[in-house]
This record gives sequence, structure tokens and C-alpha cells, in this order.
Amino acid sequence: MQQEETIEVELLDTTLRDGAQGQGISFSVQDKLSLVQTLDELGITWIEAGNPGSNPKDMEFFRLAAGITLGHARLCAFGATRKKGISPEADPHLQSLLDAATETVVIFGKSWDLHVTEVLGVSLEENRAMIAETVAFLKEQGRTVIYDAEHFFDGWVANPEYALTTLKEALEAGADRIVLCDTNGGNFPDCIARGTGAALGLTGGAQTAPLVGIHAHNDADMASACSLTAVQAGCRHVQGTLLGFGERCGNTSLAAVIPSIALKLGLPCLPPGKLERLFELSHRVGEIANVAVPDTMPYVGAHAFSHKAGMHADGILKIRRSFEHIDPSLVGNDRHFLMSEVGGRSAIAERAKKIDPTISKDHPITAALALRLKTLEAEGWQFEGADASFELLVRQELGKYKPLFKIEAYRVVSEHPSGGSLACAHAWAKVWVEGQYEIAAAEGDGPVHALDGALRRGLKHFYPELEQVRLSDYKVRVIDGKDASAAKVRVLIESTDGVNTWSTVGVSEDIIEASRAALVDSIEYKLIGDIERRFQSFFPGHL
Amino acid sequence: MQQEETIEVELLDTTLRDGAQGQGISFSVQDKLSLVQTLDELGITWIEAGNPGSNPKDMEFFRLAAGITLGHARLCAFGATRKKGISPEADPHLQSLLDAATETVVIFGKSWDLHVTEVLGVSLEENRAMIAETVAFLKEQGRTVIYDAEHFFDGWVANPEYALTTLKEALEAGADRIVLCDTNGGNFPDCIARGTGAALGLTGGAQTAPLVGIHAHNDADMASACSLTAVQAGCRHVQGTLLGFGERCGNTSLAAVIPSIALKLGLPCLPPGKLERLFELSHRVGEIANVAVPDTMPYVGAHAFSHKAGMHADGILKIRRSFEHIDPSLVGNDRHFLMSEVGGRSAIAERAKKIDPTISKDHPITAALALRLKTLEAEGWQFEGADASFELLVRQELGKYKPLFKIEAYRVVSEHPSGGSLACAHAWAKVWVEGQYEIAAAEGDGPVHALDGALRRGLKHFYPELEQVRLSDYKVRVIDGKDASAAKVRVLIESTDGVNTWSTVGVSEDIIEASRAALVDSIEYKLIGDIERRFQSFFPGHL
Repeated sequence: MQQEETIEVELLDTTLRDGAQGQGISFSVQDKLSLVQTLDELGITWIEAGNPGSNPKDMEFFRLAAGITLGHARLCAFGATRKKGISPEADPHLQSLLDAATETVVIFGKSWDLHVTEVLGVSLEENRAMIAETVAFLKEQGRTVIYDAEHFFDGWVANPEYALTTLKEALEAGADRIVLCDTNGGNFPDCIARGTGAALGLTGGAQTAPLVGIHAHNDADMASACSLTAVQAGCRHVQGTLLGFGERCGNTSLAAVIPSIALKLGLPCLPPGKLERLFELSHRVGEIANVAVPDTMPYVGAHAFSHKAGMHADGILKIRRSFEHIDPSLVGNDRHFLMSEVGGRSAIAERAKKIDPTISKDHPITAALALRLKTLEAEGWQFEGADASFELLVRQELGKYKPLFKIEAYRVVSEHPSGGSLACAHAWAKVWVEGQYEIAAAEGDGPVHALDGALRRGLKHFYPELEQVRLSDYKVRVIDGKDASAAKVRVLIESTDGVNTWSTVGVSEDIIEASRAALVDSIEYKLIGDIERRFQSFFPGHL
Repeated sequence: MQQEETIEVELLDTTLRDGAQGQGISFSVQDKLSLVQTLDELGITWIEAGNPGSNPKDMEFFRLAAGITLGHARLCAFGATRKKGISPEADPHLQSLLDAATETVVIFGKSWDLHVTEVLGVSLEENRAMIAETVAFLKEQGRTVIYDAEHFFDGWVANPEYALTTLKEALEAGADRIVLCDTNGGNFPDCIARGTGAALGLTGGAQTAPLVGIHAHNDADMASACSLTAVQAGCRHVQGTLLGFGERCGNTSLAAVIPSIALKLGLPCLPPGKLERLFELSHRVGEIANVAVPDTMPYVGAHAFSHKAGMHADGILKIRRSFEHIDPSLVGNDRHFLMSEVGGRSAIAERAKKIDPTISKDHPITAALALRLKTLEAEGWQFEGADASFELLVRQELGKYKPLFKIEAYRVVSEHPSGGSLACAHAWAKVWVEGQYEIAAAEGDGPVHALDGALRRGLKHFYPELEQVRLSDYKVRVIDGKDASAAKVRVLIESTDGVNTWSTVGVSEDIIEASRAALVDSIEYKLIGDIERRFQSFFPGHL
């Protein structure tokens, strides 16, 4: 826990809970586990991972998550204060919250009198009791309790005394964090600053426990500004979702506000060495969620440091800060008008080192790779989520690559109704391996499944180790929606042999061709890796 | 000019100038003329339309624009202060600015001493003279002069006295507006408030001419907050681009800040009746620019008032402001309740009302729909982004549905290499319409494109109105990655006939089958809607 000492503003990411409320966002259990690992890798303090009381699928996730070891982050389960008229012990939702077996729970309660009487339909006194009893109950169960004061700012404007009373109930019952929420996202920074000040009047001040936190929404396009203003006013806990996913216009985007807090207010919120990985890990979250990081997104967007005006480029070449508010490499991003930028090359060299440890950012291979990546990315390829395909690319540049097979021809058919006893999707593929040909056919649940089957059957004849390989994930992204079904698609495939897991990518206007490319990379990566491992076990240290 | 009296904060839109600096943004002269007319229709006060000194194409635009009659807006040409060491009369750029023949010109000058000495390479005194002489010269030529103080806030932080001196030069030379720019976009609202206060100390105050303005950029995700804070501090002129287009992370998005100023600060910035058209006209600007308005964009995004959580939907149906910061109709947007496992019966009833206004939360149809949705969602269907498919579902439950065609059979083939002159992807489909059969074939860039073509060709024979329908977006999502290429996929299709846009969904283990289902819904929705509209125009009030 040594790193925590360097953190002055702690972060809570709720991509898995509030983020999943965003339209078009949905995560499989596997996605959730990958997200938790990525957020932990970034050094987020708390990860709010689901609402086990209202969603049975979240409970399954918490069971699986109990098996992961995290480096920095602590998982939290989220739920509401007890239902009206019953004891916390008797509330099945609170029981589910405990069953999730996280050390920390986040509990939300009502601070706006309008919500208490008109939406919840309880008396102001009963709401106070619901807050106090729920927090006390969870503390008795040994949990760390983060208390989210829903609609705090709207409530504080409507009835300041009552809103503050609800905070007092949570504080006196032992809450470890008090988080002020702008649930409807419509308040301005000046209101946030004053409301935060009022709340801090109840606690011992900014640095003293229990810390006061902020949870903002972006409905007035001010979630970043409200979060930052709250920190300026004394909050030391910021909630949001890394890429701003969330209901309506989204939550505070942590990627857009972390650098402002760390670099401009001088208050570290990530462990040392992590801020430089913000670009990379934000894009990885986008890949897992199958949502592209907007190009114009502050700090981590692809265009965030792109200069089109010649005058701006000129100015920057004289003095960097003349047209740049921060140095892009501080967040792992890259200045765009320069062909081969330091940040980009360092990242490439860093990854190429896995194949050849002598590669540095000034190595000619790095420059060649940077150029090749630029061309491929312009065609829609992206290697952010496809390590194995990137490794094959590095091997090609290094001459450490030789194709182990070729697909001479293939045909995939989907037909409805199917012809006789044949499945609706079926395929054949003819492969070549060192002068020998093999043709194989397979049926499948869909055309990609059928092609995968045919390909693997043909190759197993030569490479029996492919028997253990199976696809563990398959993702499709339409790269440009403008031409609709004729647009390019990018297919991301994750494969496993039971020991290792690797990811590959393919791009084409034809989804079958894109899948074919990713399947071929997946198989080549497995075969080359096996050959190297076998060689090294005979001649250790020789590669 | 009667409307102007009701405007308390004037707006300057620079979509055509600063907006065109955004990566991926480019406008033809016809686009520019359409944009000017759209912005004028919205009631924007000033439209900054180009930089005739640095861009010859802009000069062509100004010649054509002289022929348009505008209702509200005044066009401005944009340029820099005179070059160093020459008189304004001798500067060809200033001559071009005059040649654009606009009544108003916007001129920018340097306020940051770093830029003056290090980037421009002139003395602090020469820069002052450049500002004073340029403004005076343009005033002598009878122009209204808007003075943009580039990098004002960075300059004011670095050397407050000098930054304010540059403003004084412009003021004393007769500038009609003084605009404070956060050119690098990295300052926070507190800095903007203090800097604005200092500038207002030089003029007669907020309401007095010359008005003080704000020009912000979004590099720290705070352009809206900075603009609003400046207005709170006394600015009465706000510059930006309607959708936030601009260099790097973009300029202040006027569509995201106008409602905050007008509705929450109570300072009208558009003529009466125009705010309600913000949604429509923002989307029209997006269409002209060929850039989709982000779904999550505050106020005007398609999801800005979408509610997924059942608790939120319930709350809103009790009291609208409980989960909504403004009434969406004030900006011409609409409330949406997303059909999902977390949404409740209230939300289902709300949407079913569009088909039958008598449906309530307790109607048996609502219960039947809730049950059907639950089953379909468990199979991987999701209707939150597929309004048209949901409507067909409601019609089926209500008995207001009859299939208008059937696909008897289809076959889609992908093969590499392709056979002879045939494309790699090709398809045929045989359709049935009221006892008649038709078979048609098509090639495509991929299998879905080919199937779409074959299907449409077959049906156009019976329904010529399908000629106008085209797919405008196509999305694929793998529902559960566990079984990889045999996993289910969900396809979302957006279609348009040029007037309306609708979304449909299909789910299957076979991507071709999932696409087929979404295509069929899309076509049925179009045909049923047309039949109803035709019927209602003959028998109004009968449905």
C-alpha cells in the first residue's frame, strides 16, 4: 500500500455500474473481468462493479471476481438504503449486497426532500432513519462504507438544512466517505463549490477522514469542471467512469479530469508511472466496451494534440507550450503533425522489446514500424487490443517470420432454409503446408464458425497442437457507419489454448474476410510461439 | 432589429472558420452557404465565415455570400493584426479582409508576452502598435470591429499588466467588442472568472459598450463551463461553433451552452421561438458537415434525455424534474425510455402509447409486452436502440400487424478467390408478396451488403417506395464472447428514406440471419408506416 501515500485525490470508477446504464453499453461477465483488470492496472483506488441486489448477473460477476488478485484497486458493490418500514436485516437487497462479499460497499440515499416525499413516498424522518440505520448496519457487518448522497446539490438548493441533515445521519452512523452527487447533471461549478463548502463544514475539512467526494453528470457539459471545482473546494474523492459512459449524457469522464487534477492542481490521483499510461489504458477500455474513444476527447482523444493550422504547428516548433496546454507525453498521447513522435515511438519500442529486447525508440525498426502502423491505421486497422497481431507485425519487420501455411481458397455459404441435412452455414477451405495440400469442410452456427471449423480441420492434419486452441471472444466493430452495410468492419478475436490467451485483428469490407485475417493471425501466433518455446527448451538462451 | 432587443448575450459562431480547423472537417462553398443559412435561421448574431487573407477559397465564398439575404445574422471576415514593420494600408492581408466587403471584421492580436517576443519575434511596443493601428485603420474604413485577444488568459496569468495593456490599445482605437480567448483551452473556470473581471475593469461594465466576450477551447473539457462562468462574470458575447467543431478537442459548443445561458441564467441569446429549434438545427448542421451529432451530447444528443434505469423512469413519470435537469421540449429534444431489463412497465407503456394512446402501465398489453421483452432479452435481443423493431412488437401484441412479405429462401456466398467475374460476396433471395414470387440476385462488398441488395431488388417490384430507403448505419455486437464465433450476434441497423430515420435489431448465432431479421423489420416498418399515413390522409382520425 506504499503507493497510496502518494495519492492525494482518490478515484472511484463506476464504468461497470453507472457506466452500464449508458445507452448502447452492455458488458458480458468476461468484459467486466477485463475492465476490472485494466482499471486496476491504471491504479484506480476503488472500482464500483455492480448492483447485486437489483441484477442477478452482477452477483455471478462478484463470485468470479473474488478469485482475481488486484494490485491497487478495491472492488465495491453498490446498493440503496433499506426499503421503507423494515429493518436493514430484513431487506433482501442489503442481504445481496453483503453476499457480494466485497470489503467495501457503496450505498446511496436521498438528500432532496422532493425525492423523499414525492418519489420515494416516505416522511423526511423515515428517510433519515433509512440512511442512519443502513450505514450503521453495514458498519456492524465490518464493511468500509462509501455513502453517495443522491441529488445532493439539487436538494441543497431546495432545502439546505434537510440536505445537510441527511449527510449528518450518514456521518454519525460511521460512513467512511461522503460523496456529493449531482445526479441530474444540471448544476454549474459555482453551485458545486458552495455546496461542497457547506458539506465540508460538517466534516473535519478536506484532508481529514471521512473524505468528501464528488459524483457529477454531464447533462450541462460541465461534469469535468464541476468535479475539478469540487476538488478545488476540498473534495479528495472523485467518482466517474473512465470514458464518461453513463445514463443520458454520461458521468464525469475520469480520463478527461485526472490530468487536470494531477498536472494542474498538483494533486496526484494515480500511483507513480500510471498517468503516462492513461492514453493506452483508456483506449483498451474502449476496445473492451466496443465503443471508440472520441477523437476529440480531451487528453486521450486521437486528435487532442493534433494541429491543423500551420501557424500553430510553427508556434509549437518554436515553443511547445505556445499552442499546447500540456505536454501530450505526460498522458501517453502524441502530438499529431510530427511524423515520428517521441511518445509514439517509445510506446512502439516498448512493445517490440517483447520480441527483441535490443529494440529502443531510436532503432530503425521502430521507425519502420511507426510508418507501417500509420498506413495500416489509416486503413482501419488498430492494434491496441490485438497484441498477437502486433507481435506478428514486429516479427515481419525483424525478419523473424515465415508463413507456416497458406489458405489457397475458401467458400462460406449461408442459406435459409438449408439444403437437406446440411446446416444453414457451411464452409470448405483448402490449405497449403510445405508443399502439401489439404481440403476440409465444416458446418457451423454461423459463417465465421463454419470457416473457423474448416480451417482448423485442414491444419490439424499438419499441426495437431491446434486441437487445444479455441476462440474465447469475438468482436465486430463497423469502422465507418456512413456507407452502412458496405462499410469496413474490424474483427477482434481472442483465442486460448487453455494456458495462454492472445488477441488478433482483421479488417475488410467483408466480415468473412476480416474474420479470416484474424483467424490466420491467431493460428500463426500459436504455432510460432510453440516452435520458439520448443527450441528454447532445447537450446536455452539462444533466441 | 426588434428581436435584438430581447437578446442579452450575443453569439458568434465560427464553424466556418475555427470549426474548419478541426481534423476531418471540410466544407465546400455550397456547404458554407447552407451553414450560414442554418445558423441565421437559428438566430445567431454574428457568423465568422472565413479568413480571406490566408485562404483564397474563402474570398470566393464572401463574393457569393454577398448575394444572400439574412434575417438575423451579420457575416464577419476574420484576420490578424498588420504584419510587423509595415503600415496597415500596406498589408495585403488587411486589404483582403476589406475586399471581403463585410460590414463587420474580426481581428486577432497577441496578449501573451511569450508569443509576442518568442513566436512573433517583435518587441512588446511594436505589438501594441500593431493592435492599435490595425483597429484604428479598420474603424476608419467604416467597419464594426470585433477584437479577439488571442491567448488572453495565459497572457494575463504570465504578465497581467501587459495583457491588459493590449486590451487598452484595442479599446482606445475604437474596437466595438473585446473578446478574451483561451486559445490553448487549458484554463479552469476560476481563472476565467478572475481574468474576465480584470478585463471588465477596463470597460464600462457588463452591459455597456464595448461588450466583453469569451472564446474558449475544450482541451481540458471545460469550454462550456468556462464560457458560462465568463457570462456569470459579465461577458455578454460568446464565441463558439454550434457543434463544437474546432482544432484539437474543439471550440465551445454553442448548442451545449446556449440552453444553460438562456434557461438557467435567464439571459436570452436567441430570438424568441428559436431555442425550441436547437435540436433540429444542430442536427441539420451535422448533416451538412457530414458529422453525426454525438448521441451523448448535452441538450441536443439523441440520448441526452434517455432513461435506462427503471427507477429513473418511475421517478420521471411521477415528477418530471426528479430526474431531468430541464424539460427536453424547451430545446426541441425528446424524452426516451429505453426498453431494457432495468426499465420498468411505466417505460414500456410510455412508448406503446405512440401506437395506441389508451395503453397505460396497468393495461394487460403492457404486462404481455413486459413478459415478451423479458424472454427476448434473455435470448440476447435488445430494443433500447431499436425503436422501429419495438413498435412492430407492440403492433403484434395489439393485433395491428400483418406480414407484408415473406422471404421464401436466400443464399449468401463469400468466396476467395472469387469465381471468374463474380464478386467475392454474392447473394440471391426469393420473396413472396400476396401470392406472387420474385427472385433477385446481387453482388456486394460483403455478404450483408449482397443480401441487402438482393432482398431490396426483389421487393422493389412490389413496393417501389423502397427505392428511397437506404441503410445509414450498421452495428454488430457479439452478445456473449464465451462461445466465440458460435456466440450470438446482435445487429443494429439504422435506415432512412431521406425524411425519417428508424432503427431495427436482429439476433442470431449467424450474423447473416441476424442481419436478415433487422433488414426485414426495417422494410416492414417503412411499408406499414406508409400505409397508415396514406390511410389517415383519406380517413383522418380513424386509427
